[in-house]
Amino acid sequence: MRAVQSAENFQNKMAMEGVPGSLGTSVGFSLRIGQTLFSSASLLFMSLGVEFYSYSAFCYLVTTMGLVIPWSCTLAVLDGYSVVVKCPVRQPGILFIIAAGDWVLSVLTLAAACSTASVVDLLFQTSSSFCTPKCCSRYQLSAAMAFLTWFLSLASALLNLWLLPSS
Amino acid sequence: MRAVQSAENFQNKMAMEGVPGSLGTSVGFSLRIGQTLFSSASLLFMSLGVEFYSYSAFCYLVTTMGLVIPWSCTLAVLDGYSVVVKCPVRQPGILFIIAAGDWVLSVLTLAAACSTASVVDLLFQTSSSFCTPKCCSRYQLSAAMAFLTWFLSLASALLNLWLLPSS
Repeated sequence: MRAVQSAENFQNKMAMEGVPGSLGTSVGFSLRIGQTLFSSASLLFMSLGVEFYSYSAFCYLVTTMGLVIPWSCTLAVLDGYSVVVKCPVRQPGILFIIAAGDWVLSVLTLAAACSTASVVDLLFQTSSSFCTPKCCSRYQLSAAMAFLTWFLSLASALLNLWLLPSS
Repeated sequence: MRAVQSAENFQNKMAMEGVPGSLGTSVGFSLRIGQTLFSSASLLFMSLGVEFYSYSAFCYLVTTMGLVIPWSCTLAVLDGYSVVVKCPVRQPGILFIIAAGDWVLSVLTLAAACSTASVVDLLFQTSSSFCTPKCCSRYQLSAAMAFLTWFLSLASALLNLWLLPSS
């Protein structure tokens, strides 16, 4: 009986305070900040001073990062506000939209990162006329940053999915 | 009170019979058969009579499909057996392993499909010397089959994840 009660207490505590990393917690805020930083870095490495628009995989990466950055920024602001006023968002509708958005963006980010990485690898192998060493290393860095964005995005998506049934 | 009872009945019924598409149901069996067929088709289009080993993205696709085929075959046999004897597997340990395996393979399949698609697109755009029309269409078909495998694999993974907390 006591075990059941303590399990219930634990569940209520988790539901009230939120799983670490989910919406409205300080770990969640750090995850969003990380996503914003890595996706911005990926976008900058890909688009500044490099002719990315001749390859469709690179255009796709730029488009995806252009979606991830405003999404992560908005949720970082929301998380920061929730942490400061200590009142996390717990409306099931909003949680569902955020969880679904996280999943979709996580899949898109993984697809973009894999496409970029495979195209860079092919350009690197084929010949140096398509891609100078300076360009190639920037493309590689951009793909690496996209993979890091995906890791953090997946973590957010999993933790918000965990929170969904308890709301 | 009646609403709570009927919700509980529904939940018990779902836990006993399984969500359609999860482990041990006929929809789950169809999903596994579909995964096996599409992944075999992807592997055959890529490997028979085409020099796939000169591109690392294509080697990665072949490796991933080599993992997906035995996994889907084994689970198709398990599902078929469960449907025939009407006794689905409900041990939490086994369910957890199957759900985790489904997720990992689903991510790997998406990565392989995206890499292959982007490399095929690049080869197609660059010049016809790298890839004759016959080869290119086979690569494209292989990538399309890999995407279909990913769709079915994601469906299995989501439905098994749904089943996990109720076991």
